[in-house]
Amino acid sequence: MALHTGHPAVADDTRWSSSAIRDLLLHARRPDVISLAGGLPAAELMPRSALAAALASCEHHGVDPWQYGPSAGEPALIDRIADEEAGQDRRADPSEIVVTTGSQQALGLVAMVSTRPGDTVVIEEPGYVGALQVFRQHGLHPTGVAVDRDGLDVERLASQLEAGLRPRLCYVNPTFQNPTGAVLTPARASALIDLAEHYGFLIVADDPYRMLGFYRAVAAAADPGPTARILHPHTSSRVVRLGSSSKTIAPGLRVGWSVAAEDVTERIVLAKQGADLHTPTLNQLVVADQLADGDAWSRRIGSLRAAYRDRADALTAAVSDGVGRALGDVAIERPRGGFFLWLDDLGVDTTAGLERALAHGVAYVPGSAFGTGGAAARSLRLSFSSGDPATFAEGVRRLVDALSRS
Amino acid sequence: MALHTGHPAVADDTRWSSSAIRDLLLHARRPDVISLAGGLPAAELMPRSALAAALASCEHHGVDPWQYGPSAGEPALIDRIADEEAGQDRRADPSEIVVTTGSQQALGLVAMVSTRPGDTVVIEEPGYVGALQVFRQHGLHPTGVAVDRDGLDVERLASQLEAGLRPRLCYVNPTFQNPTGAVLTPARASALIDLAEHYGFLIVADDPYRMLGFYRAVAAAADPGPTARILHPHTSSRVVRLGSSSKTIAPGLRVGWSVAAEDVTERIVLAKQGADLHTPTLNQLVVADQLADGDAWSRRIGSLRAAYRDRADALTAAVSDGVGRALGDVAIERPRGGFFLWLDDLGVDTTAGLERALAHGVAYVPGSAFGTGGAAARSLRLSFSSGDPATFAEGVRRLVDALSRS
Repeated sequence: MALHTGHPAVADDTRWSSSAIRDLLLHARRPDVISLAGGLPAAELMPRSALAAALASCEHHGVDPWQYGPSAGEPALIDRIADEEAGQDRRADPSEIVVTTGSQQALGLVAMVSTRPGDTVVIEEPGYVGALQVFRQHGLHPTGVAVDRDGLDVERLASQLEAGLRPRLCYVNPTFQNPTGAVLTPARASALIDLAEHYGFLIVADDPYRMLGFYRAVAAAADPGPTARILHPHTSSRVVRLGSSSKTIAPGLRVGWSVAAEDVTERIVLAKQGADLHTPTLNQLVVADQLADGDAWSRRIGSLRAAYRDRADALTAAVSDGVGRALGDVAIERPRGGFFLWLDDLGVDTTAGLERALAHGVAYVPGSAFGTGGAAARSLRLSFSSGDPATFAEGVRRLVDALSRS
Repeated sequence: MALHTGHPAVADDTRWSSSAIRDLLLHARRPDVISLAGGLPAAELMPRSALAAALASCEHHGVDPWQYGPSAGEPALIDRIADEEAGQDRRADPSEIVVTTGSQQALGLVAMVSTRPGDTVVIEEPGYVGALQVFRQHGLHPTGVAVDRDGLDVERLASQLEAGLRPRLCYVNPTFQNPTGAVLTPARASALIDLAEHYGFLIVADDPYRMLGFYRAVAAAADPGPTARILHPHTSSRVVRLGSSSKTIAPGLRVGWSVAAEDVTERIVLAKQGADLHTPTLNQLVVADQLADGDAWSRRIGSLRAAYRDRADALTAAVSDGVGRALGDVAIERPRGGFFLWLDDLGVDTTAGLERALAHGVAYVPGSAFGTGGAAARSLRLSFSSGDPATFAEGVRRLVDALSRS
């Protein structure tokens, strides 16, 4: 009496089907392809000698880097994060912080502790594909709400809530959003908090790019800017902030964090313990050292801003020149920060165009990858963060060639 | 119209309630307490100079340790794991391996890809508390099946399956089980596979202690022993093996892995990507270096076995002497490997006794922490792995004092 046939070892489950776009983008690694697809930080902008020095001297923290550590994270790092993640009128409290294995992990843990499978969650459309993926993996139902240059369209969300939408969680990239580069305005951030309080959902403000603004006149490197100060658990216990060292220090270390009200933080610590016990100790100490030297950290952020601004300008110029001429009247907005240039409504199906683009030797991410529906089917994301700026013009030439033949 | 009151920010949910025993065991860190509670590896047995050397020379792998890496793991480490995790007649294939942030993470990922919330899973009773925790966090219903000195009572499981139990997954610690030290016999391992094939569930063989056998006469350090060779995806695609570097190298690095059939592995990679993108690169390269030098690795395993055997003998002697006299006819089984000595059926309520023991200056983990029911309510776990053996006799004296006053 075989109740199940021997194979497959696991039952069919749509949560675990691979993505056609992801499979195609494996070709972006071909040496003949100019990749404008990935969202990696520039390898040459990582503080290699400072990191090597931190590795060699990590015993100065008086913590055994090889032994098990606390699930919430190393106090030395938590203390630095508390400074970085100040709210409107005070620094964060260490009891509000959990160190995670990248902010990607924080996202999944917050989803686990604030939802149950089958719950609805709001995501930005277009929005970060890794959030969409992890919400689906946890059995949640993502509903997209449109994004414009001022971030999530909070008025539209309000209408949907009024019409009966009942999310448990709303996920936003407030600053230099992936993929559009949008910045949520302080007014919208406040309105979003009002909605969260009224309808009883959690706001997850995932803010990995917030330090990488190109034009903001700020006194200190660590000034989070007005939106980040408003969208903070000190303003409302319904806000959870996620931070990351991946874009400013080194993603290979996998060090991120959450900042949340104490009762939410207590749950995140339990979920963190279940997930991987704790983030590697050594990696936390190395990041703590980078954040500890205020002057060096300010200089570092300043030079990252300048370097990524130069890259953004180079890609924007190449695109203005090439795409404008070939594909007609496309509005190109110069990125204000972050890693990405978003080309909205190019008038061609960018999903169908990807295979053709790869054949022409260029890679991008089609708009359809960033959402639940087809809203961005004629848009695409280009990354200026890690490619060689000298190849941008040729990459754009190939792109225009491929897409104008549709 | 406030649909929800402002507080709390997250709804009540029993998955995220703290454990009374865990809260009590925070007192085990008091300087006046001899802790026989923790399950940490001995700090003085970690290969500190080899680890520091590996950190300083990690560029020899030709991989950027600071950049994002592949979700399945670094090929250099996967290749070494493929050797360590040989099946009956061949090494594992790299396509069967995923590197995880400790084997704790692998456990959660396997649960995610093979179950849905509400499913039943079988756990060992008593068994690893971290498995119980993560299964509950994923909304699963753990059912305990008894463990004796030969591991999971597979005949009893067969009866329960015949009576209608339908688990999606069965979790076992096959070698030197936490907390009892039991070793699953090859005959039971084979019978368990037959049941998994017949009833269609996955076996998760979490094997962090398998290298730490005290008495096994083996030619090579890396010989996994007969049970590990049988309980392997090469024998049945329904088996997933979990491995760890935490007990043999250093837990602070957080490097573990899964070995599974290719279709299961593909899902684990997607879940891993959603969970934290990848395990930190540097940490993987450091572990790869430890596994790469076969002679040094064999010597290392040999010296760990000898050191932990000496500790086990010291604790067993102290207990035989103290407990035997005070608490009567208690059968004490000398540990055959691993980190723990299990005292079964002491005739006193060990959960109620913990607070008294802490007041007497000694900590242990009560049997009730290791299960869903009260089966081990009069048992307790002592750890010999990280305490100072010179304190064992005094620790046991305090334990007997505390428990004999109940």
